[in-house]
Amino acid sequence: MQSKNKGEISFINKVRIRFVETDPLGIVWHGNYIQYFEDGREAFGRHHGISYLDQKEYGYATPIVKSSSEHKFPLRYGDVATIKTIYVDSLAAKMIFKYEIFNQEDVLVCTGETVQVFVDKIGEGDLSLTIPDFFKDWKQKVGLLNE
Amino acid sequence: MQSKNKGEISFINKVRIRFVETDPLGIVWHGNYIQYFEDGREAFGRHHGISYLDQKEYGYATPIVKSSSEHKFPLRYGDVATIKTIYVDSLAAKMIFKYEIFNQEDVLVCTGETVQVFVDKIGEGDLSLTIPDFFKDWKQKVGLLNE
Amino acid sequence: MQSKNKGEISFINKVRIRFVETDPLGIVWHGNYIQYFEDGREAFGRHHGISYLDQKEYGYATPIVKSSSEHKFPLRYGDVATIKTIYVDSLAAKMIFKYEIFNQEDVLVCTGETVQVFVDKIGEGDLSLTIPDFFKDWKQKVGLLNE
Amino acid sequence: MQSKNKGEISFINKVRIRFVETDPLGIVWHGNYIQYFEDGREAFGRHHGISYLDQKEYGYATPIVKSSSEHKFPLRYGDVATIKTIYVDSLAAKMIFKYEIFNQEDVLVCTGETVQVFVDKIGEGDLSLTIPDFFKDWKQKVGLLNE
Repeated sequence: MQSKNKGEISFINKVRIRFVETDPLGIVWHGNYIQYFEDGREAFGRHHGISYLDQKEYGYATPIVKSSSEHKFPLRYGDVATIKTIYVDSLAAKMIFKYEIFNQEDVLVCTGETVQVFVDKIGEGDLSLTIPDFFKDWKQKVGLLNE
Repeated sequence: MQSKNKGEISFINKVRIRFVETDPLGIVWHGNYIQYFEDGREAFGRHHGISYLDQKEYGYATPIVKSSSEHKFPLRYGDVATIKTIYVDSLAAKMIFKYEIFNQEDVLVCTGETVQVFVDKIGEGDLSLTIPDFFKDWKQKVGLLNE
Repeated sequence: MQSKNKGEISFINKVRIRFVETDPLGIVWHGNYIQYFEDGREAFGRHHGISYLDQKEYGYATPIVKSSSEHKFPLRYGDVATIKTIYVDSLAAKMIFKYEIFNQEDVLVCTGETVQVFVDKIGEGDLSLTIPDFFKDWKQKVGLLNE
Repeated sequence: MQSKNKGEISFINKVRIRFVETDPLGIVWHGNYIQYFEDGREAFGRHHGISYLDQKEYGYATPIVKSSSEHKFPLRYGDVATIKTIYVDSLAAKMIFKYEIFNQEDVLVCTGETVQVFVDKIGEGDLSLTIPDFFKDWKQKVGLLNE
């Protein structure tokens, strides 16, 4: 579902923790949160029309250039976690998202951020130094650009 | 290293078990053995000139159409396993490999088999119903075809 | 949802293919189907009261001793696959499941089977050579034992 | 091998990129670098006597509470990457490591950092607010504590 905070473009989805995602300590291995961030970002993207497959259609890929996570509490097998993915607006030719992951008791267990750049797959595969048209259009559509 | 059994084309390599590959039971999650089979097959392929990247150069991909594994004993974090990859010759347009995985005490812990087919990536992406030339050449090179 | 075939104990669930589960050929890496089998088996288990966590409560683990898969068509990123997990009854001290995975056009893309044994986690961690009581009770509950 | 920079405690190891670690863009999926960091940290740990299994013997686990990565260039299937793991000393009850990953042309492709805390597994599983004795001993052994 879409979040209701005014002016914030976000999306909330749920993910069931898989057995294979937990480690000998009985908790989710920290690297798997990067996967949950991607699950959240893609759920956001499908809802808001800016997913990997949407970008691909416009001739762009958006590789991750930066990623970070902070872990406050563990998740365990059997948990169903809630991922909140929040779009962070920027003037740069970048896509920035923040993530908040909650356990079933609604406790914040993990936060994170990713930064993506635009690579033109139709052209030379070059890094785009300006915001591509399709992303400007998207910003306008979701109310982030006013003219 | 290459195995010495007469008439058998095989290869032996070692793989260190990763923490993330073990599960809450403290043992390697069974699905990860499919990865070890691929590690073995690619080590075989690099040694014998028939790896994924070699096949790609010839314009072919070889997707797995069948795979099986039997688990006799577990592997744990900290173990260094030995993978023996054995080429199984066939008249069909297929690549078949058998695998034997041993723990540090040289106990056989897992066996498996994979079957791959040839897909022509230069043409229509079609399944090759006959053995591609590059694979015939390879068979000849390793002594499996005599004329 | 539960399947309707008479006398068959099965369960149907859906899984959305993740980006990370696809490989440079653009298709799901074959080893990931083992994960989908587990997704199906655990969905079956949660529905029918025989999941990993249920077993754990009874003091048992059920490691996989055999697993096989056959691949007929690929799955791609963006697909939502349907997994049918079918319980295969046996007189042995084993849990056997068959799997059928369908793509969005309802085409059967993959079949598989897994065999699990019972290990007593409260006792010595020994392999159980007879069917544990909790599993007999479960068989009775789902109508597989008549007395 | 151990690095020679004066006063720096580090370790260098190599990792061969696996097919399954690359994505449909043909490059290593960003989340897998977290695995390479762990590969580097554990190689460091085995060399310097402070690995996961060493910590476990002392009754401690050291879960990751923070992790970050920056990606400058991609790695591809077939690459053999070099991981440099650098211990970052701190007065806090934490283990901090920095990572530098290089491709075969010795180009820096990724940097990262992880922060771990100490959890007493013998006691109540509590977070240790002071540096555990075993880690003080280790610091002394590697020359980081002088009295």
